[in-house]
Amino acid sequence: MKVWLACLLFAGAALGSATAWSDEGMWPLQLLHGVEPSSEWLTRVRAASARLANCSATFVSADGLLLTNQHCVRNCLAERSSRRVNLVSAGYLASARDREASCSSQVADVLLDTQEVTSAIEAATRNLDARAANAARKKTLTDLEHTCHEQSRTTDPDAQIRCEGVALYSGGQYYIYRYRRYTDLRLVFAPELAIAAFGGDPDNFQYPRWDLDVALLRAYDERGAPAHTPGFLRLNFNGPKAGERVYVVGNPGATFRNLTVAQLLEMRDVELPHAILRDSELRGRLIEFGRIRPANAQIAQTTLLSLENTLKVRRYELDALHDTERFDRLRREESDLRARFASLSRAGHVTADPWEQIARAQESNRQLALPHLYIEGGAGFESLLFNYARTLVRAADERPKPNDERLREYTDGALLRIEQTLRADVPVYAELEELTLSFSLARMREFLGPDNPLVQPLLAKDSPDSLARKLIGDTNLDKVAFRMKLWNGGAAAVNASHDPMIELARDVDPAARALRQRYEDEVEAPVQMASEQIARARFAASGTTVYPDANFTLRLNAGSVQGWRENDLPVIPFTRFRGLYARASGYDPFVLPTLWQHARGFVNPDTPMDISTSNDIVGGNSGSALLDAQGDIVGVIFDGNSHSIAGAFWYNPTDNRAVAVDTAALLEALRVVYGAGTLLTELGAPPG
Amino acid sequence: MKVWLACLLFAGAALGSATAWSDEGMWPLQLLHGVEPSSEWLTRVRAASARLANCSATFVSADGLLLTNQHCVRNCLAERSSRRVNLVSAGYLASARDREASCSSQVADVLLDTQEVTSAIEAATRNLDARAANAARKKTLTDLEHTCHEQSRTTDPDAQIRCEGVALYSGGQYYIYRYRRYTDLRLVFAPELAIAAFGGDPDNFQYPRWDLDVALLRAYDERGAPAHTPGFLRLNFNGPKAGERVYVVGNPGATFRNLTVAQLLEMRDVELPHAILRDSELRGRLIEFGRIRPANAQIAQTTLLSLENTLKVRRYELDALHDTERFDRLRREESDLRARFASLSRAGHVTADPWEQIARAQESNRQLALPHLYIEGGAGFESLLFNYARTLVRAADERPKPNDERLREYTDGALLRIEQTLRADVPVYAELEELTLSFSLARMREFLGPDNPLVQPLLAKDSPDSLARKLIGDTNLDKVAFRMKLWNGGAAAVNASHDPMIELARDVDPAARALRQRYEDEVEAPVQMASEQIARARFAASGTTVYPDANFTLRLNAGSVQGWRENDLPVIPFTRFRGLYARASGYDPFVLPTLWQHARGFVNPDTPMDISTSNDIVGGNSGSALLDAQGDIVGVIFDGNSHSIAGAFWYNPTDNRAVAVDTAALLEALRVVYGAGTLLTELGAPPG
Repeated sequence: MKVWLACLLFAGAALGSATAWSDEGMWPLQLLHGVEPSSEWLTRVRAASARLANCSATFVSADGLLLTNQHCVRNCLAERSSRRVNLVSAGYLASARDREASCSSQVADVLLDTQEVTSAIEAATRNLDARAANAARKKTLTDLEHTCHEQSRTTDPDAQIRCEGVALYSGGQYYIYRYRRYTDLRLVFAPELAIAAFGGDPDNFQYPRWDLDVALLRAYDERGAPAHTPGFLRLNFNGPKAGERVYVVGNPGATFRNLTVAQLLEMRDVELPHAILRDSELRGRLIEFGRIRPANAQIAQTTLLSLENTLKVRRYELDALHDTERFDRLRREESDLRARFASLSRAGHVTADPWEQIARAQESNRQLALPHLYIEGGAGFESLLFNYARTLVRAADERPKPNDERLREYTDGALLRIEQTLRADVPVYAELEELTLSFSLARMREFLGPDNPLVQPLLAKDSPDSLARKLIGDTNLDKVAFRMKLWNGGAAAVNASHDPMIELARDVDPAARALRQRYEDEVEAPVQMASEQIARARFAASGTTVYPDANFTLRLNAGSVQGWRENDLPVIPFTRFRGLYARASGYDPFVLPTLWQHARGFVNPDTPMDISTSNDIVGGNSGSALLDAQGDIVGVIFDGNSHSIAGAFWYNPTDNRAVAVDTAALLEALRVVYGAGTLLTELGAPPG
Repeated sequence: MKVWLACLLFAGAALGSATAWSDEGMWPLQLLHGVEPSSEWLTRVRAASARLANCSATFVSADGLLLTNQHCVRNCLAERSSRRVNLVSAGYLASARDREASCSSQVADVLLDTQEVTSAIEAATRNLDARAANAARKKTLTDLEHTCHEQSRTTDPDAQIRCEGVALYSGGQYYIYRYRRYTDLRLVFAPELAIAAFGGDPDNFQYPRWDLDVALLRAYDERGAPAHTPGFLRLNFNGPKAGERVYVVGNPGATFRNLTVAQLLEMRDVELPHAILRDSELRGRLIEFGRIRPANAQIAQTTLLSLENTLKVRRYELDALHDTERFDRLRREESDLRARFASLSRAGHVTADPWEQIARAQESNRQLALPHLYIEGGAGFESLLFNYARTLVRAADERPKPNDERLREYTDGALLRIEQTLRADVPVYAELEELTLSFSLARMREFLGPDNPLVQPLLAKDSPDSLARKLIGDTNLDKVAFRMKLWNGGAAAVNASHDPMIELARDVDPAARALRQRYEDEVEAPVQMASEQIARARFAASGTTVYPDANFTLRLNAGSVQGWRENDLPVIPFTRFRGLYARASGYDPFVLPTLWQHARGFVNPDTPMDISTSNDIVGGNSGSALLDAQGDIVGVIFDGNSHSIAGAFWYNPTDNRAVAVDTAALLEALRVVYGAGTLLTELGAPPG
């Protein structure tokens, strides 16, 4: 039966013709066969596409130049800033190659190939109960990743290769994705925050908007030379036309379109309300932190920007889940699939009802969610320095174990990335660390209760504030040398350490691991097993329209440049420089950078700035190239309209719109505002 | 038919015998006949019960002494504080009568009698459509209040009388409640915050707890002498026994037990999530405001305490509404009542489906809720000084109109209270005003959008922060004399004013009034008319078990001293001084006041401190007396357990518990900790 299902899947996934494309769907490239972007087109696009730590990017020159969003390189700008210099606000333009600024915690992964391993996972988990299957699944993926690494080392000993186990269709298929990884990324260009995010939080996710949210990084190879990337994609500086067919290639982060109703209710009634409550309070703390002392505003800037973005997403997700009409439709679809499954089941093919298993697991989840979030998830200890401590303590415990018996995030394939993160010399601001740690300790006490067995001793002789102050004040984990000493010293060094943050992480670890184990056994394991069964039922039912939920792996989507109707009024799919100048009030966040104020009489006011398209995207797609039919870049995705956030759960073609920076805006800005002639030459821009 | 319904109601409301009492129900005293507290008992208790601006209280001496909670007099303590002196934290004990400290914005209302006016309202609204009926209902209530005032003036020209139109059963009955109002309240005793709210926000709504949340005020009459209150209730300093029958008399604020499912969904999916988001952010801002500069913590203290209480209530209310089992039961009950209504309707008695009308009104509400909240509700302008401005601007417009054509809050009966509020010399802290105003302007821009026609001009040349700073910095409304000049000068003075806050309130008022009118016409009017119909259907269906939703009018409830089971473990209904000392960690909010630390060896550790009872109470009941069968006071209600918050929607006898301070704790504290001999004598305490 497995083989039959697999055959059906492939028949389904292979789109028959170009007419099969709809705007909906984020397709893994390996599942596209015979549709209008040819396989040559797909191969070329894949080779030029990169996944950053948190975003997408595209090679745009033979010397490793990567095009992405300003908001995707904000961490790098913050890393290169200090209390005196604020590159996030000021922007950056490297005057020469040797002035390109290192982004020490960034990576770029280029997908080389994918290998399906579903049958290996099935063989390893067959006839096991849910918990044992969950353990076997992880162990098998670790072993497969290891084999992939070993094989790659033989063929290309210089290049860093990253092999990653990937579940598509919630476990309907398993793959090993093999990436070429670059860890030496350098900042070439980022515009000022005031133009990259003009309109700030008020305009975020609110098209029409006027933003130049673009940036350029350069990948360097292991010898410190610019990466050799002859397969880069060209920029078409004319941008797209209204109605033109456009493609988005990138790494959408997560969608929840195949979750069960029970899982969506859990998100709606438990997870999202709690997350919004936390995010809102932290937002208030960060805003006030910066309002009282302006110097603090800079310290908290990137944290606040990213928090406000997350909060807006969660708010709109919650609104979407309160759309009763849509939700009722999901209920009906689930009922239909469930009935179909039940009839197959009666025919003797399958047994337990996976929807019921998932619903039961949600009940366990309701018990475990908050302790798991605060203690294992780290929401009770929000601080960069605690994260270092947790990593060092866990790594000390895990590294001596056989590779396939470790927690998945400490297997051999992950260690280089951990070391990169520990070694990255990012600035640590004690005041900000104290704020987030004090906040999270206070909320942990509130939500687990002052008498919780972990909380009580922690705060028996301290307030959240005094404890945070002591921990942040006394730890040495802000120093790279100290972190590397513990990393290199392994378990002996970590266990002998009297650093208070290390001690805290050590004290918390038994409770955290116990919660993780309970969560994996009581929630993850039954959900995973049931999800695999549902995926198979969906393959059987849905035929050719099946695409897997997004999971931050490479996907292609086809759409077109178009607006929509908002409150019965048309929204046109282009904004222009003229509108930017009209909207600028001179008051935050509607204030233009000085260069843009000066350029007012020189730029062409008709230049298209931002575009709305019907492409089906979500967070993670930020920085994705918007491609025309030739595979040339005509825009850079950086946002969606407010309706696009419901895309986490369903795609609505009437109003879900992606938002991109038009390449014409990039050309005009680099040429007239920034005078970046060398860059324009490298980008193959027409002579100005 | 109306007469028949009224008869049925009275038959229903009259409880037949003592055995008819259940722990559930907040009964208006005038609807209790023939149950075990005799009518003499009820009359005596009513005469000794007072409603404060935000709480309940009871006369406990012949000289106007009122027993209530510390948290009910926090505003008074804050009013008597300054940047140097913090009475909220320090507490207060008047060394003599002439040191009793004036609470300039407090009131105490003693219910004199109630007069049913349902038939007058019915006559005034008969055959009108919903909008016209809504206007006629308000006009009639204003006229009835006016008549009541005029009559009272003849009989008792000295006493201030307050006549209030009251709807019970969502408009199933209407009354005029006549109160003796005291406006000269003075603070006699309040303990330190650290013992009144020991355990702070973490322990709030979390029984077992150990708090002395009590306070004593004294009412003074119009001649400045202590009020003559011979009908006071005695304190029984032994407190109650486990299992003892106990009564709560007080003013529960609001319950929603008779709302329709559509209204509850609106609360669950729209109102509560937004309120929690706002409250959480403001909490974060206030905490950080105090964390960065300790002097600020005092300025923000009472605002933060009350905000955190509200937030916890709203969080647990949201959790309650996510109890699908309970919610499904409500749905079934509604279906039953609706079916019954429909069959009556088919029999020709009634016509439109009121549940459907309410559901349709909720759709309008979803459109209007946020603009109404921010612009008319003032959530976009949160600041004491804006409130003054709004009041002065509105009063200037309203006072020249005939009494029954004014907005209800500006009728003759309300003017004295408005004047009292404007005249109260409460401290205004500009930093705090800026914080709340900046916050609320920012959120108004976020939720109505930067392009909203009211928001856009307001913030065209300002950020929320710069606008807040200008308004708070330049207004003179923090000065009593300035406010009184505008109040006494009326429309001419207000319209001529160039005070920037007055100008803002004037600019906003047309939009605010338009939204109010739309809200009243499209939401309030149809809901009110439909609610009256549903109330009648419920009277017809439910017979003797009907009690009206709480609305901050005087109610009696009977329960007993008892614990409950939490996670299968019994919670006993008493805490004792011993437990207080055991819980004190010395770290905020588990730190004891100095006097309590010193008293440790002297107090009796067995003294009962807090009690849990099965009484059905909600916010507004704070400060209510807990009475024994003799009508003696055995405790002071100040809290509930976490399950009690679901009491907003339903009463669950298995776990809903009220929490009171035991009178034995009050005696021991006044005698041993505070050495308050004179007070104890006035309270009739036994010799120590």
